[in-house]
Formats: sequence, C-alpha cells, structure tokens
Amino acid sequence: MAEAHATIEPPRRLLMGPGPSPVEPRVYDAMTKPVVGHLDPFFFQVMEEVRAGLAYVFGTKNEFNLAISGTGSAGMETAVSNFVEPGMKFAIFANGYFCDRQTEMGKRQGATVVRLEKPWGETFCAEEVREFIRREKPHVVAYVQAETSTGAFQEGKAICEAAHEAGAMVIADCVTSLGAMPVEVDATGIDIAYSCSQKGLSAPPGLAPITVGPRAMEYLRSRKAPNRSWYLDLALLAEYYGNSHRYHHTAPITMFYALREALAIVKEEGLENRFARHRRNHLALVAGLEAMGMRMHVAEEHRLWSLNTPRLPDGIIDTKVRKRMLDEDGIEILGGFGPLAGKILRIGLMGAGSTQENVLTVLGALEKALRTDGYTPPA
Amino acid sequence: MAEAHATIEPPRRLLMGPGPSPVEPRVYDAMTKPVVGHLDPFFFQVMEEVRAGLAYVFGTKNEFNLAISGTGSAGMETAVSNFVEPGMKFAIFANGYFCDRQTEMGKRQGATVVRLEKPWGETFCAEEVREFIRREKPHVVAYVQAETSTGAFQEGKAICEAAHEAGAMVIADCVTSLGAMPVEVDATGIDIAYSCSQKGLSAPPGLAPITVGPRAMEYLRSRKAPNRSWYLDLALLAEYYGNSHRYHHTAPITMFYALREALAIVKEEGLENRFARHRRNHLALVAGLEAMGMRMHVAEEHRLWSLNTPRLPDGIIDTKVRKRMLDEDGIEILGGFGPLAGKILRIGLMGAGSTQENVLTVLGALEKALRTDGYTPPA
Repeated sequence: MAEAHATIEPPRRLLMGPGPSPVEPRVYDAMTKPVVGHLDPFFFQVMEEVRAGLAYVFGTKNEFNLAISGTGSAGMETAVSNFVEPGMKFAIFANGYFCDRQTEMGKRQGATVVRLEKPWGETFCAEEVREFIRREKPHVVAYVQAETSTGAFQEGKAICEAAHEAGAMVIADCVTSLGAMPVEVDATGIDIAYSCSQKGLSAPPGLAPITVGPRAMEYLRSRKAPNRSWYLDLALLAEYYGNSHRYHHTAPITMFYALREALAIVKEEGLENRFARHRRNHLALVAGLEAMGMRMHVAEEHRLWSLNTPRLPDGIIDTKVRKRMLDEDGIEILGGFGPLAGKILRIGLMGAGSTQENVLTVLGALEKALRTDGYTPPA
Repeated sequence: MAEAHATIEPPRRLLMGPGPSPVEPRVYDAMTKPVVGHLDPFFFQVMEEVRAGLAYVFGTKNEFNLAISGTGSAGMETAVSNFVEPGMKFAIFANGYFCDRQTEMGKRQGATVVRLEKPWGETFCAEEVREFIRREKPHVVAYVQAETSTGAFQEGKAICEAAHEAGAMVIADCVTSLGAMPVEVDATGIDIAYSCSQKGLSAPPGLAPITVGPRAMEYLRSRKAPNRSWYLDLALLAEYYGNSHRYHHTAPITMFYALREALAIVKEEGLENRFARHRRNHLALVAGLEAMGMRMHVAEEHRLWSLNTPRLPDGIIDTKVRKRMLDEDGIEILGGFGPLAGKILRIGLMGAGSTQENVLTVLGALEKALRTDGYTPPA
C-alpha cells in the first residue's frame, strides 16, 4: 500500500517510560491496510474481533467490551460520565495522580466526591477499604488498579465486595495493567474497567478499551437524564457497535486495525506466558536496580510488573539523567511528578518493550548516566 | 519499520461516500514511523507543524489551532461543551442531520436551544439569518458550513455579522469542507470551527482539527464554571499544546503523524489548485449524473464540491444499488437518511478521491447498477 514515502522523520526512541510502549512491527503494518467505511461490514467484523480480544485480556465474560474513540483519558471520562450523575456520592481511593483525575472528573459531573487518602505509592488493605465504604455508603466507587504515577498495584476484591454490599458500582482504572498483568475483571468483581491501547497492548495511543458488566449495563438502561457527553454516551455507542449498527460517529478505522492486530498478538503469545514474561523482566530489572544501590519506591508485594519506580539516589537530578539517556542512548524513561517529583524514576517494561535485552540496555544506560552525574554504585 | 506482516486483510474499497475518503499513500507510510512519547520534543515539533498547516486550510490567522484526540464528533462536542454553558441561549440553523446533533449536544449542556428550520438540503439567505438572530439574541450561534447529510453549503458571513452585532459567538461545522473547499474562517468571521481528518484531508479518521479565534479565547479565559468534559477542556488542552507542555492526555501520536503528512500534501498542491480540482471534478460528476437523467437535490449555487447528492430515479431502491456497487465494483457510496432516506445518493469526491478517473469509474458503475435495476437513462 505504502509505496510513497512520508516526509516525516521521527527519531527512533527506545520507549521505556510509562507509555507509549514500543509498537509491534505487525501493528505498524496493520495501519497501512486500506481504510474501509465506518459502516462497512468488514469494520463490524473487526469490531467483533476486538470485542472478543478485549474480553480475553480483561478477564471477563462481559459482552459489552469496546474501544472508545479517544485515548485512555477518554476511557476514564466514559466511565465517570456514564455512571456518576449529579448529586451522587462518588468514593475514591486516592494514592496517586490518576485517582486525582477521577476526582476532578467526578466533581465536573456534579457528584459529591469522598476520598480515602494515602501517600503516593502506598496501597489500601482490605480492612481500610471496607471501613471506608461502609462508612460512606457511596453510589459509585473508583480505584486505580495500576497507578502510572507511582508504580503501585491496588488489589480490588475487597473494594468490589464492600461496594456491592453497599449497592455501589465499581470503576477500575486498568490503563497500566491491561495486557501486562492479570486484570481479572470478573474474578475481582469490577463493574466497569477502562484502559488504553499504548501500554501493555503495544499499539499506538488512540483508543480506550472499556468493559461494562451486567450490573452497570442495567444501570445504564435505567438512567433517566442522558450523559452530558454525547460523544462518550455508552447508550448511543451500544447502538452503533451492537446489532443495529446505528450510525453514531466515524470510528478511527486504522486504530481499530492496530488494536485488533495487537490483541491477536496477545492471543498468540497467551496471557499466562505474557504475564510470566512481564513478571520475569520486572524482577530482573529490580534486581539490577538494587544491585546498583537503588531502592524501589513501592513495597515488594504491590509493585507493577509493567512500570518500575526506583527512588533516585541522593544528589541525583532526574531531569539531567533522563536528558542524558534520551540524547546519548535514545532511551525514554520518565521521572516522578506531584509529590514524587524529583524523587523517583519511572521505567516501563510494557508489551513488546518487556524484554531481557531492554532490561540490560536500560540498566547499562542508567548506570552510565548516574556515574556521569557523580553517583558511585556499591562495589 | 514494518517488516512483519499483519494478519488483517481488509477488502480494498474505492471510498466514494461521505467519508472516510481514500487515504494518501504517503499518509499510510507516515503511520509506520516510530512512535515517540507524548512529551517528546519531536512530538511538539509535529504539533507545531499541524498548527501551521491547520491555519492554512482553515484560512485563519488564529494561533489556537489544534487537533482534538477524537473523531469529528469529538470536535463538535469540544466546540459546544467549551462555549455553550447551562442556561445560555444557543441558536441553530437547522437544515440537516448535523444541526440536529449540535442541537442535541447543546441541550445536554443545559442550554436553551432555538432553531430556525428549513427542509434538508435548503440553505438560509442573509435576510432570514439576520431576522432570526436579531429576534432571538442568542449567546452562541451554530451552523453547518458543509452539511454531510444533504450536500449543501451554507454561507456564513451574514450569520457571523448578525451574531457579532448581537454579542454572540459563532461555531461552524466544517467537517465536509476542510481541505476541499474554501472554509475561510477569518474572512467569514467564524469564532470556532471544527472538522475531521478523513474527508477533504484524506487522512484516516481519528482526529478533529479545531480553530479558536481571539473572541472565543477571551471567553474561554473568563469562563467561571469549568467545562463538564475534562477530556475536551480547551483550557487544559491549551496548556498541553502551549508553551508549558503540561501533561494532559497521551495524544494519538501516529494519527498526528498522519495528519501532519496530509497537511504537507495540501500545502504542496496549494489550496487554490486543490479547490479548483475539487470544483472541476464535482462539475464533471454532476454533468455525468444529469446526462444519466438524474437531478441534483441541492440548488446549483449551494452545492458542495466534496459531496454530491443526486436524487434517486423513481422506483430505484438505494440499498440495492449501493450493495451492487459495493459487491461488484468495490465502490462505497452511501444513501440518504432521516427525511432523505431512500431519496438521494451521497457520492463523495474528497481529497485524494477527487480525481477525473474516479468520476468516470463511479459514473460507469452507477449506470450499470441502475440499468440492472430497470432504469433506462435518456438516450
């Protein structure tokens, strides 16, 4: 298809930040395939494949799995705007940046937001979760399964049990876990989960996978006032992607090709193998970082396999290290922000980027950059 | 980049409906270029090129031109949600489907919507426009410059003059005109214009170009309640795409590469040449359709060059004709919907699809399909 040559010449980066992750070559190839119309039978076939692939990675029997035509944040806004109505009580487990974003979106929807707060990087235990939800009796609960700003994994089972006991629905942010770690929507009891295309799935950014369980679907059907957002209204999207195929918007066809291909790759590798690979490379990176004398910010049992957050050694300035690695080695890693600004690095091992070779490459480049800045690793 | 082969095999369609249009080969190639991070200096350089390219096609000196990370409808929702607040009076010139969508979005924002209505395919003259706006004294006015459901072009100068006289801002839907016909944001006086990537610009769907003029920017800065949509909040997007580059969302990098390449192609051809090409091929198609005994739905002086809407001959069923053309010739055209269902065809000649060869191809296939269904063109 692509005989003509584009004039754009991006630098080749090794993407080892919190996302986007390196895109699979097959996914790049999928994007050169001819665009069809948004009402073409072939497109709806692609949609069905995406639906099935998402059920697999989300770990769910839900029928309503789709990809929102926007990036991960559009997935968050879809979840919040469809299920959090004005005047509702919206409970949030706040231990990082993306919980703050859920808070902001909830407030904009006119909800009363209540938060249980912890320092960035810590997680909530079952007792804290239960006590908070029983006390607050919210309508909707949100938590971040994989917090991109801290590198922490939050268990959801106790949250979902307590929420359902209180008659509340649960929204889970799985942006940095999907395709890299077990999300387990059904086993956890999550009602609505959303993610992105550019991390554990290794497609470019541009789509936000979402899954909606039966309890949430029932709520959606009984909702009286329509979603304030027409673009993200799941009731309208259900008609477009459902059997009636009623026109809603022009879906980003090429991005769907990319996501379909990315999901096919996940299926071929198998989730168990994929998770084992992510865990293995995560452990190898941590071992290497610790051998260099660095300490991890998150407690061992709560670390993400997809995103590693070592604390910066004293006296080391993260922006200098990162600039050196980007300029000299073409490697992108990111630093912390908010309360963790200047305190941690964020090193991603996601999707196609989670390889033994990348672990060695990033450790080598990091050690070189740290030494240049005067840091001496232990002998 | 793409040595590996994707498993997806879409049929090759000649896209001659109301969009998406055929994607330029160079644009497909651009999408195989390596993704960089959404905070990478290279990405912001791409954004600057997109900004400049959009100023050129929109016909504006506005500084605030960007591409929303969603499809054309996300552009509409960005315009409506940022500038139409609860309790405002929102005036709409209603003569097709997309004005109805603006109406729906305005209502969901809590505005009082007033409409001047005409049958689908007709347009509003300067006197009607002035009388309506002077009578209603709205806060915001919206119109559709290029109505995709009817094929009609609406002049905007009188709308903008009357609106500004009344202290109102003007939103224009340029989804089917941008890159194919003069949009002339500044000369017309439009305050906010939005479009899509997949019609006159011949990139895949996935981005919504938008331009915001000084009057609208001033309003945005003085707005008290934040936009209910966090994802489409232009104040936040201005910080991400502006000099501070403050993180907002992960932009769909690959789609930006595509749009940048598409805009480079427009620049190389030159707008005047591009418009002349669209006009020439439109006139040729109309001549051919009329020679086949068909009549155009829209009055001659108000026709879009990008989308042609012949009325169906008596007794011809549009779905049969379209299915035949798709199955036998691989050509996608669409029919009418709403009040025009079963009454018109919608044949696009947009961007890379507006060629003399395509005019002949679609005329030949259409004549064959019509004859098969028992229609005999005049001798």
